[in-house]
Amino acid sequence: LLADLICVGNELLTGLIENSNSGFLARRLWSTGIPVRESIVVADNLGSIKSALNRALEESDLVIVTGGLGPTDDDLTRESVASILNLPLLVSEYWMNKLNQIFLARGFAMPQNNLKQAHVIEGSVLLENKRGTAPGLLINHHEKIIVLLPGPPHEMQLIFDELVLPYIVKHNGSKLTKVKTLKCFGLGESALEEKIKKIGGADLPALSYVARGYEVNLQIKGSGDRYTADAYINQIEQKIREIIGDFIYGKDDDTLAGSVAELLVSHNLTLALAESCSGGLLSDLLTDIPGSSRYYKGGLVAYSRSAKQNLLGVDKEILERDGEVSESTAQAMAEQARLLLLADFGIGITGIAGPESDASQSPVGLVYIAVASPGGCACEQLTISGGRRVIKERAAQYALAMLRKALIETVREVQK
Amino acid sequence: LLADLICVGNELLTGLIENSNSGFLARRLWSTGIPVRESIVVADNLGSIKSALNRALEESDLVIVTGGLGPTDDDLTRESVASILNLPLLVSEYWMNKLNQIFLARGFAMPQNNLKQAHVIEGSVLLENKRGTAPGLLINHHEKIIVLLPGPPHEMQLIFDELVLPYIVKHNGSKLTKVKTLKCFGLGESALEEKIKKIGGADLPALSYVARGYEVNLQIKGSGDRYTADAYINQIEQKIREIIGDFIYGKDDDTLAGSVAELLVSHNLTLALAESCSGGLLSDLLTDIPGSSRYYKGGLVAYSRSAKQNLLGVDKEILERDGEVSESTAQAMAEQARLLLLADFGIGITGIAGPESDASQSPVGLVYIAVASPGGCACEQLTISGGRRVIKERAAQYALAMLRKALIETVREVQK
Repeated sequence: LLADLICVGNELLTGLIENSNSGFLARRLWSTGIPVRESIVVADNLGSIKSALNRALEESDLVIVTGGLGPTDDDLTRESVASILNLPLLVSEYWMNKLNQIFLARGFAMPQNNLKQAHVIEGSVLLENKRGTAPGLLINHHEKIIVLLPGPPHEMQLIFDELVLPYIVKHNGSKLTKVKTLKCFGLGESALEEKIKKIGGADLPALSYVARGYEVNLQIKGSGDRYTADAYINQIEQKIREIIGDFIYGKDDDTLAGSVAELLVSHNLTLALAESCSGGLLSDLLTDIPGSSRYYKGGLVAYSRSAKQNLLGVDKEILERDGEVSESTAQAMAEQARLLLLADFGIGITGIAGPESDASQSPVGLVYIAVASPGGCACEQLTISGGRRVIKERAAQYALAMLRKALIETVREVQK
Repeated sequence: LLADLICVGNELLTGLIENSNSGFLARRLWSTGIPVRESIVVADNLGSIKSALNRALEESDLVIVTGGLGPTDDDLTRESVASILNLPLLVSEYWMNKLNQIFLARGFAMPQNNLKQAHVIEGSVLLENKRGTAPGLLINHHEKIIVLLPGPPHEMQLIFDELVLPYIVKHNGSKLTKVKTLKCFGLGESALEEKIKKIGGADLPALSYVARGYEVNLQIKGSGDRYTADAYINQIEQKIREIIGDFIYGKDDDTLAGSVAELLVSHNLTLALAESCSGGLLSDLLTDIPGSSRYYKGGLVAYSRSAKQNLLGVDKEILERDGEVSESTAQAMAEQARLLLLADFGIGITGIAGPESDASQSPVGLVYIAVASPGGCACEQLTISGGRRVIKERAAQYALAMLRKALIETVREVQK
C-alpha cells in the first residue's frame, strides 16, 4: 500500500494556518508501515482539487483528502471527488437528522448551507464526526481507497484514529509493515547502537535510530500479517528492554514530561521547581498535562540574582563565591524549592541562554541542572549549542530525564 | 506572479520532521502579494523531484524548492533541476574555497562528499549561506524564476529574507500587491470593523480582518509599483492608527510579548509574575525574548493553595473567603509578586484550566487576571472555551495585553 495526502484550503497556501494535518497523517501511516508518496496542498477550487486527485489515484492505492468539507460555497472536496469518480451525491438521512439535532442543541435551526454536509458520495461509508458538523467519507473504488476528512485537526484526528486507521490496517492485513518507536534518553546514538548490537545479527536490520536533541528514537519494524508483525516487534522490544530498559521512557507518542507525571502520580510523590535560564518552560511543559496539580506544588522562576537570594533563599555566600551559574547554586535552588514548597523532589536549573553571556563571562549554553530527592541531591553540567529556545528546551528535557532517574531510584530504594 | 513551493525530503513524508518551510514561505510570499498556487512535499528521488518541478514550471512563474542540497547521495535537488533545464553543473571556485575555510575552522579537512555542495547550475546566481555548507541557487530561465534553498529552516529563512525576497520584489516591481498586517488586541472583529468603517468607503476594499483568539489581524493591501503600494498602505495605516492606535500592538511578525518587552526596556521598568493556571507559560514566553533579564525579575508558579498562601503570601482570609479562583486572589497574587520581587509591575493569573474543575466547582475556563502597577491594580474576568492549552495561551496573551495597557497609561501619567 502506498498513500498520497491532499490538503485543501486557501488559508494553508497563505500560511495563515499551519498545516499540521500532513505531519499527523504521515506519522500515523508511517508507523503502520504505509509510506506516503507525495503530500500536497491545493487551493479551494474544483480544477486544483481534481487534478491533484487524478495524479494521486494514478500513483497510490490510498488517497486521503483533508479540508473542503465545510458548509460554504468554496468547500468543494465532496463535489470534486464525486466528479472524478463519476458518482452522484446523495443525501444521508442519518446525517441530516444528526445535523438537525446538533443545531437544535445549539438553540437555533440548521442554516440552509449546512444541508450540504449531509451529502454523501454514492457507495461511500459515512465516518461520524463527534466534534463537528462535517462527517468524513470513505470510498473503496476499483481497488483504491479514498478517504475524505474535515480540516480542523481535532476533528480529523479523532475520525482517523477511531475509524480510518482500523479499516486500513484490516484492509492491509496480509501485507503489513508496522513500526514501533521506543523513546530513549540518556544514551547517545552510537552508545545505544553499541549496546544493542549484542542482541545479534539477524534482528538488526529491523532497527533504526533517529537522534533528536538528547533523545534517540529507536524504531523497530515488523512485517507480515498484523499478528506476525506484532509478535516480532514484541520479541525484539523485550530483548532491547532487557539491555537498556532504564533508558527507555516511553513509546510512539509518549513524552518525557508525561512519563515523569505518571511516575509521580502512581507513587503519590510531589515536585517543586526553581528555574532560571529555562525561564518557566519546564513548569509550562508539566502543567500542559491534565491533572498536574496532583503532584506539582509550584515553582519559582528565579531569573534575577535578587530572586535567587531573597525569594528562593539561596545562600548569599554561594552566589558570591561560585556565581549564579554554578553547581552549588543549582543544588541550592533545587533544595530550596523542595523545602519552600514542601515537595518530595526539587529541580534547580541555572545557566546562560544567550545570546550574550552575563557578568561572569561563562560561555553561552553552559547549564547546571540539579535534582534534590529524599535521598540526596544530584547535579549535572551541560554545554548546549544552539539558540536561546534550543538551550531552554534541551535543559528542560534533560531535567525531566534526571528527575525520572531519581524517581526510579527512590521507588526502588523504598521497595527494597 | 504566481508561485509553487516544492519541499524535498523523505523525513517530511514520514512526519519525523515538521514541515515549517512551506508555511514560512507562504506567509512571506503572500505578504508580498504573490499567491502560492500549490505546495508539495516529495521524496528524495530524481523522478519525484523532476515531475513536481515540471508541473510547477508549467503553471507558475516562480518555483521555490527547499531541501535536497546536502552532501549525501540522496540529496538530488541540484541534479534534478539541472536535468529539467538541460543545463550542466559547474564547480564554483568561490564556494569550494569557502567550504575549505569552513572545515578548516572546524578543525578537519573537507570530506569528499561536501565537494558536491560547490556545484552550481550554469547561469545561476549563488546565494551565500551564512549558517551552513549548502548555498542556495537562483536561476532566471525563460522568464521563470527557480530558487533552490537548503532545508534547515534557520538557514533557509536567512537566505530567503536577505537575498531572495529583495530580488523577487525588484523583479516584480511594476505589478506588485503588498500586504501589511496590523496586529490588534482588545477589540473584537466586528467592533474593529465598526470603528474603521468611518474612514470612508473607497478605502475599505483594501482591508481584511482575520481573528485569531483574542487578536485581530488587520490586513492592508496596496497595489501598483512598490512605491505606490507602500505609499498607499502608509496612508491607510495612518488613518487607522488615528482611530484605534492604542489597540495596535505591532505589525507583521511582531508578537505581543515582544511589544511589551520593548516598552519595559525603553522605559527602564521591571516586571514580576505570579501564575497559577497558566503554569509558567507567560514566563516562558517572556524569557524567549533575548535580553529579558533586563526587565524580568522573576516569577512564582503558585500552582497549589499552599504555594499561594505560604510562598506568595496571599492572605489566608482571602483564600478562604473568595477561593483560589477569584478577583481578590488574582489581585493579591499580582501585588505580592510585585512586592516580593521589587518590580514596577506585577501580574497575577488564576483560573481553572481543566479538564476538570476544582473543589469550588467553578466552570472550566474561568480565569482572573490582575495587573498591579505603581498606580493601582486592575483585574479582569474571562471565560475561555477550549482545551487546557488554549486556556493557558489565551490567558497569557490577555495578561500581556493588560500589561501593555497599564504600561502605556503609566508612561503617559509620568510624562504629564
